[in-house]
Amino acid sequence: MSRLDSFIARMQAQRDCLNFLKPVVEAMPGPIFEVGLGNGRTYDHLRRLFPNRDIYVFERQVAAHPDCIPPDDHLFGGEARQAIPRAAQKLGKNAALIHSDLGTGDHQANMAMGEWLGPALDLLAAPGAYILANQPLEVARWRRLPEPPGVPANRYFLYRVANG
Amino acid sequence: MSRLDSFIARMQAQRDCLNFLKPVVEAMPGPIFEVGLGNGRTYDHLRRLFPNRDIYVFERQVAAHPDCIPPDDHLFGGEARQAIPRAAQKLGKNAALIHSDLGTGDHQANMAMGEWLGPALDLLAAPGAYILANQPLEVARWRRLPEPPGVPANRYFLYRVANG
Repeated sequence: MSRLDSFIARMQAQRDCLNFLKPVVEAMPGPIFEVGLGNGRTYDHLRRLFPNRDIYVFERQVAAHPDCIPPDDHLFGGEARQAIPRAAQKLGKNAALIHSDLGTGDHQANMAMGEWLGPALDLLAAPGAYILANQPLEVARWRRLPEPPGVPANRYFLYRVANG
Repeated sequence: MSRLDSFIARMQAQRDCLNFLKPVVEAMPGPIFEVGLGNGRTYDHLRRLFPNRDIYVFERQVAAHPDCIPPDDHLFGGEARQAIPRAAQKLGKNAALIHSDLGTGDHQANMAMGEWLGPALDLLAAPGAYILANQPLEVARWRRLPEPPGVPANRYFLYRVANG
């Protein structure tokens, strides 16, 4: 499997998971968070899936396609580790969906990041919220869900926050 | 269709076209050229499809994954417009396959680039060679081929150089 094959599979898994989550996220209130804007493709997908929902974005340094940059009041700049708790203080703990696609090709660095990222995202998440991440995250009140139909195992990691 | 959908479709089209070309390119001698290394995913795909073939890469400024950087003697740096004729002078007109994925999101700029890119790539191409590009290119001795089965129209542009 080439890096091209692997990348296509990862992008498809991401999209399939987000599409799968659409009806369950629509059934609950609360904003959506995109952690890592990148080129803005996934942000564009999210805003088409959820056109009437607030979507907040964390991005250290915006370098997305000009059409895919969120409005200033929906963008949290700087390092995610500091920006996420800041956003939680401002917006409260009521996210319906959090999608996280941070990290580099460096497996060790990603694993180390997971240790603070899970608890940080938990500060934003409403009871019953969904978290979709490109890496495993461990939070006591989250339960891992099986991959949606057709999505290969362990490419994306889907969690649901305990209800109440 | 979101930018994520469109991107996945484009990457799939690229891969499907390259896989489709494998047997016909294997049947003829000559090196392969990758115009625009980017993150190196397609280069990785090419070297797995054609493990015994010289693959030369044009890239203004290498920023690929460290595992996907070609050896120095297979890399032409600087602007493609100057680097392609330089390579042709050194290596001759014997490429079996040229894959070009240059350009930005700027449609006008890409169209302007096509005007010099086609003739420049033609300097490298052997009779009967295949050219796969992410934009239309017009060269008198090239004939456009239909998309391989399953590849949507006009995402990628496949050409064959006239034989002899």
